[in-house]
Amino acid sequence: MLAPCSDEFLNGLRAVLPPATFRAPEARYAEEPRGFWTGEIGAVLAPANTAEVAVIIKAAAQARVPVIPYGGGTGLVGGQLSDALPAPVILSLERMNAIRRVDPVGNILEAEAGAILANVQAAAEEAGRLFPLSLASEGSAVLGGLLGTNAGGVNVLRYGNTRNLVLGIEAVLPDGSIYNGLKSLRKDNTGYDLRHLLIGAEGTLGVITAAVLALHPRPAAQGTAVMAVASPRAALDLLAMAQERLGSGISAFELIHRSGSDFLAQTGFSLRLPFDETPEWCVLIELGLPEGLDPEGALEELFAEGFEAELVYDGAVAQSLAQRQAFWEVRETIPEANKRVGAVSSHDISLPLTQVPEFINRAGQALGEIADFRINCFGHLGDGNLHYNLFPAEGRQREDYAAQKGAAVRVVYDLVEELGGSFSAEHGVGRLKVEDLERYGDPAKLAVMRAIKGALDPQGIMNPGAVLRMPEE
Amino acid sequence: MLAPCSDEFLNGLRAVLPPATFRAPEARYAEEPRGFWTGEIGAVLAPANTAEVAVIIKAAAQARVPVIPYGGGTGLVGGQLSDALPAPVILSLERMNAIRRVDPVGNILEAEAGAILANVQAAAEEAGRLFPLSLASEGSAVLGGLLGTNAGGVNVLRYGNTRNLVLGIEAVLPDGSIYNGLKSLRKDNTGYDLRHLLIGAEGTLGVITAAVLALHPRPAAQGTAVMAVASPRAALDLLAMAQERLGSGISAFELIHRSGSDFLAQTGFSLRLPFDETPEWCVLIELGLPEGLDPEGALEELFAEGFEAELVYDGAVAQSLAQRQAFWEVRETIPEANKRVGAVSSHDISLPLTQVPEFINRAGQALGEIADFRINCFGHLGDGNLHYNLFPAEGRQREDYAAQKGAAVRVVYDLVEELGGSFSAEHGVGRLKVEDLERYGDPAKLAVMRAIKGALDPQGIMNPGAVLRMPEE
Repeated sequence: MLAPCSDEFLNGLRAVLPPATFRAPEARYAEEPRGFWTGEIGAVLAPANTAEVAVIIKAAAQARVPVIPYGGGTGLVGGQLSDALPAPVILSLERMNAIRRVDPVGNILEAEAGAILANVQAAAEEAGRLFPLSLASEGSAVLGGLLGTNAGGVNVLRYGNTRNLVLGIEAVLPDGSIYNGLKSLRKDNTGYDLRHLLIGAEGTLGVITAAVLALHPRPAAQGTAVMAVASPRAALDLLAMAQERLGSGISAFELIHRSGSDFLAQTGFSLRLPFDETPEWCVLIELGLPEGLDPEGALEELFAEGFEAELVYDGAVAQSLAQRQAFWEVRETIPEANKRVGAVSSHDISLPLTQVPEFINRAGQALGEIADFRINCFGHLGDGNLHYNLFPAEGRQREDYAAQKGAAVRVVYDLVEELGGSFSAEHGVGRLKVEDLERYGDPAKLAVMRAIKGALDPQGIMNPGAVLRMPEE
Repeated sequence: MLAPCSDEFLNGLRAVLPPATFRAPEARYAEEPRGFWTGEIGAVLAPANTAEVAVIIKAAAQARVPVIPYGGGTGLVGGQLSDALPAPVILSLERMNAIRRVDPVGNILEAEAGAILANVQAAAEEAGRLFPLSLASEGSAVLGGLLGTNAGGVNVLRYGNTRNLVLGIEAVLPDGSIYNGLKSLRKDNTGYDLRHLLIGAEGTLGVITAAVLALHPRPAAQGTAVMAVASPRAALDLLAMAQERLGSGISAFELIHRSGSDFLAQTGFSLRLPFDETPEWCVLIELGLPEGLDPEGALEELFAEGFEAELVYDGAVAQSLAQRQAFWEVRETIPEANKRVGAVSSHDISLPLTQVPEFINRAGQALGEIADFRINCFGHLGDGNLHYNLFPAEGRQREDYAAQKGAAVRVVYDLVEELGGSFSAEHGVGRLKVEDLERYGDPAKLAVMRAIKGALDPQGIMNPGAVLRMPEE
């Protein structure tokens, strides 16, 4: 049985932690970006270092007080807030934001969990290196949350997910013990990989407090293009063609549907892609090439070959850094436009690459039979990761679809399942998809997850109700 | 309390499994490559499919019979055999060796755990793709063992360890349940990453039965060079210089000490590197570049720049595929020469890159004070991974060093620990390094490992005594 964060509990902590640890329970700690839910706050605690995190977790374990780790608050699946717990501790990493060291020879960067992604990227760049994790919320998302959710983003095609960019972590475990795994090794086979277990566990098995990240060489030259493609299938064929020519030189390959541009226009953004007529489907391609190669030339050749093969019919290669940034700004602002339009339902799904076109066709058809949704389908095609979001028809409100929403979600996820995909590609499970995990997750895997949770967090204090349903009392 | 694999137990299995499952207990199942240990065999079972594996594990769990998964038998740390168990089942994956599918568009290959690495590489190549895992024993090592130990090899610098090449796995868990995680997704954040937990667990948490592997584009052009370097520090500076110029185009960067060449000559191999005078230290560099770049030219430019900076003083760029293979054959045959010479002690260690030169200097000095060892230090410098092996002086036998061996091992591992390294880089813990893990492992991590082992394998039947000491009865 979990207990609320009582005055007695907090007074015990006040006796051993500095006053700066105790923060005002501002509204932002109880809100999430899409405004679907609000959370409850027992207290907001912001420790200054790992030892203080350990003090808090140990006390919480003894008193059975629930603890919700809080990073940048940008999560989209409700992993960072709950209204179903007795007055939880919000454990904010905001004061632990130091970038401890950058080593360009060893190609590593060590930082604390509260460091904002954009600052980590900048520190790597200052040292002449690249930290390739990049996503729309990089100005506020912090390492702890990015690792906790194994965030994806636009460069996964080339560099992998967050977990592939982490060499070592430090974490406080549910009993308050400190796991010191801050090694900066490329190879280390010494027992079970606790790092990969905690990455993606969404704070349910402990709190990641710091990490050693892998840096990469910066590509000598980068290039960006947008190309109008005949269909999602053509986009896929273009990707294969590009990989044949350029191998790992392709760092991003994004699919964008016309709805993205429509929504931008509709919600007051003047951003647009450089097409005379907005195509139904287009791709945004980013290259990073070694010395001696010319990205603009390579993109032009790719376009010519794609045009010949009737895969692409219009396009533009960015001629300056400003143009490259402008292309990307369109892509990165689509989520904000979506938010302003107001989705009925949002789906962060992934599919085996070759199944993407079939999914788009069949899902569109099946949803059309349910209601007059507008569908904005965009995302990281190179990873088979689509953000497949349903919106009200023009002039209607999302509330109008209350009766159809359940059936629509089911259609999407059932088809994902049938085609061997995932109902959560990069956003995680949080509290939003606990039931989906129970429905679509492998039963043996779920049993293992519950066994691990029970073994490492027998009191069930760490982010209770995220990822796994809380056990019945 | 574990029970031996009795006639009663085997008769129970004979009633439900085809006769071909039951193999003769040939000596090879009880031997390991270095000839240090022999194992005991209760029975050798070679199931034909995952369902049969599940039948065996389930029966073993009920009867508390120990099960040791057996792949290619190439492991170097005794993970595949034990003489300290009551008559164990040797569960050989040798009949489950199908390559189920190769999909060059989706860049995936699905195969069973008994598939030999060289066959997997060949199947990928036939489809115009690369499966980059590559190591000396690739002609007999199989996927199950490679995944179970998270094998490393020569291409980790560019492509990562085995775990980075695996999209999904299927496994039989210690209770006989089947985890079906054979997804071919690049992004899938649906709960704890069971895949990464089982990869590297050395068969102690279940048996991996099949995997979906990530394929890569084949580099358009490859090149290979050897360069004599002034010192390990110079080798490291050359690596940084190469990465600055060629980024991820460097797929291997191997350090070789003169002892390697000496041992080859001494043990009857006529292989040699193309130097007039064998240098004390040299590096073997492999490039894989996209279309439009010339690897031989790039290697020559790198040599020229390195020469200018006084990092390298001799070298050769391979001018043909045959020459490239000849360079690599030298590198790949050093382990066999080592075996013939007969090591006193072998160490598969890793270090933060920048600490490698200090380790080599200090370890050599400290060991010289203990005995007149010949040291053969070689390995994957790009990953900070050294094979640091101690041999008898010429004319002496390894038995002569019995009194000094313990102290020598301690010197090596204590220094590795001091410099933030790992006592097991790519070979795993097996039974050889259980005590080292207890000594050097993070206590909180060890506690988590024991908790997970207890939760998933309460009977303790899966590869008992590997990685973790068996609990006291």
